[in-house]
Amino acid sequence: MFRPVLAKMLPYTPGEQPAPGKCVKLNTNENPYPPPPAVIDAICSAAKGPLNRYPDPMANSFRIAAANALGLPGPEWILAGNGSDDILTILVRGFVGEGQRLRLPYPSYILYRTLADIQGAAWEQVPFQDGWKLPAAFGEADDDVRLVFLPNPNSPSGTIVSPAEVAKIAESLSCPLVVDEAYADFADTNCLDLVQKNDRIMVTRTLSKSYGLAGMRFGFLVAQPQVISELSKIKDSYNCDALAIAAATAAMGCSEWLAEICIKMNATRDRMATKLAEIGFDVTPSHANFVWCQHPTADHKAIYEFLKSNQILVRYMDFPTWGDGLRISVGTDDQIDACLMMIERAL
Amino acid sequence: MFRPVLAKMLPYTPGEQPAPGKCVKLNTNENPYPPPPAVIDAICSAAKGPLNRYPDPMANSFRIAAANALGLPGPEWILAGNGSDDILTILVRGFVGEGQRLRLPYPSYILYRTLADIQGAAWEQVPFQDGWKLPAAFGEADDDVRLVFLPNPNSPSGTIVSPAEVAKIAESLSCPLVVDEAYADFADTNCLDLVQKNDRIMVTRTLSKSYGLAGMRFGFLVAQPQVISELSKIKDSYNCDALAIAAATAAMGCSEWLAEICIKMNATRDRMATKLAEIGFDVTPSHANFVWCQHPTADHKAIYEFLKSNQILVRYMDFPTWGDGLRISVGTDDQIDACLMMIERAL
Repeated sequence: MFRPVLAKMLPYTPGEQPAPGKCVKLNTNENPYPPPPAVIDAICSAAKGPLNRYPDPMANSFRIAAANALGLPGPEWILAGNGSDDILTILVRGFVGEGQRLRLPYPSYILYRTLADIQGAAWEQVPFQDGWKLPAAFGEADDDVRLVFLPNPNSPSGTIVSPAEVAKIAESLSCPLVVDEAYADFADTNCLDLVQKNDRIMVTRTLSKSYGLAGMRFGFLVAQPQVISELSKIKDSYNCDALAIAAATAAMGCSEWLAEICIKMNATRDRMATKLAEIGFDVTPSHANFVWCQHPTADHKAIYEFLKSNQILVRYMDFPTWGDGLRISVGTDDQIDACLMMIERAL
Repeated sequence: MFRPVLAKMLPYTPGEQPAPGKCVKLNTNENPYPPPPAVIDAICSAAKGPLNRYPDPMANSFRIAAANALGLPGPEWILAGNGSDDILTILVRGFVGEGQRLRLPYPSYILYRTLADIQGAAWEQVPFQDGWKLPAAFGEADDDVRLVFLPNPNSPSGTIVSPAEVAKIAESLSCPLVVDEAYADFADTNCLDLVQKNDRIMVTRTLSKSYGLAGMRFGFLVAQPQVISELSKIKDSYNCDALAIAAATAAMGCSEWLAEICIKMNATRDRMATKLAEIGFDVTPSHANFVWCQHPTADHKAIYEFLKSNQILVRYMDFPTWGDGLRISVGTDDQIDACLMMIERAL
């Protein structure tokens, strides 16, 4: 009774989510710090508000605050989503029909493939070149390719493609390019400015990482108003709830908090990267809140298992034809010290 | 650059959502009363919890509580969603491919058609017969029809099809039958028991109506475990946020509150129905938290406009080939008195 595409597809498996407090959790790029206090206040206040009433379908209070915080021309450049996963789903449904194709770099975020599978669409992966550069093939026009995803900074590498290069890729493509900026708050550059110059460049953001709101589910799309308007047809009427809208609106007013938390986390990240290099890892320079590292001789899976048996969760990732390694999220300094100590023991 | 199906489709338009407190809102079947206090406490408590961590992908605390509250064999019979709209989307994506068809009765919930449109699928409407009975055509097997939706109680009519009749329809169909029980808490019967007897009968529920949690977005599906498991592949990994899971879990413990609120609202509904009949309306006997009424001579649109100009919002609905009328949600007794007084003035 199900669509045949479902039987064939493997479900996307998110990182392990053990019960809270049971371990040092460095496997899903969450923020180790709680969200801004103003956000928590906004939630409790909204909880005492008219929860019996449907929320604003377009989350306009958030859109106004976000346009202001990000320096966008207006709220009509923003589409709010129930996490950026919701936005990614809307994008795939908006641009890619059954039997058509989407493109992603490799290795990157596996979820794009799952979204194609669910849609009955195909996906093609373009491998990164040495030094995490994108080959010309990534920007090649192709009538069957209806959407291209570029996570930037990328996961698992934490590497970034410059806005100038992104603009060039978009120019050569014949379809929209979605720059998934889940980790952009930790980087020095982003592609927001490009959206105003090219209606086929779109940027997605999430509050799950830098804002410490993974539990809240809130993400958004930045695109030209006519694109936002058309994509709005696809979203659930009330895709964001009243509490999430209140929380996200409050978060947009916390730019100082955000700047401070990113400086703090990036300092921890750089310290972790230096130490990992000292103990023999090849560490990819990261612009995100995690570090990708590979050891020339040690068994990555064994290190992951040893850490796990000591209540430290990192992400072991194995990319066929490409290699495996460890992706370690930035935790508190204490958590990273504990993790590094255990890795040394494992070697 | 968009899929052609989008250009052709009309977006679903939810009922008007004016700024809170501006008017008597009887147009979207919300609960006029706030949710149970335990739910608000649960939200505030969860807001102070680990919001920086991803929520439980399957919302297991809710599933356990709901299975218990509803007398289901276990949590694996439940799929949680970001509102029942999320569940309806998952169902369409799970069963209906591009170019295939879904079936719905007419008049009923317009959203099913929108969901088919987004999917690039077709829809067919089977008109209710006199007395809101379903004709044999509604249960006719057809290889191209991949999913049948039956809102029960139905909107806008508030009428209900008996579980025995639902079982018979499901037997004759060649595809799954989704019984959308958004309003079932206000009715005397429901189809939960049928799910255990037939793996092609599924029931959807929402916390938006009876629990007074429209602002929260939480709905769920009851189906056999193998169906839940397959449909889980389609949902966003973290479709329900930590606050919604906490709220919904707490709500499942409020069965006494629920019983009382439904008795209270049904009393108001029946009083409204009696009065509307007294002043000349044909009132369809309702098993939901709204009443559908038609006046033999008065202009329904004009009544709606007059009410709106007096800060009372009801739903004017016009179903081509079938007729128009007013759908009035159950409000507080004071709100309904105000509405009835204004309707009398409008006549």
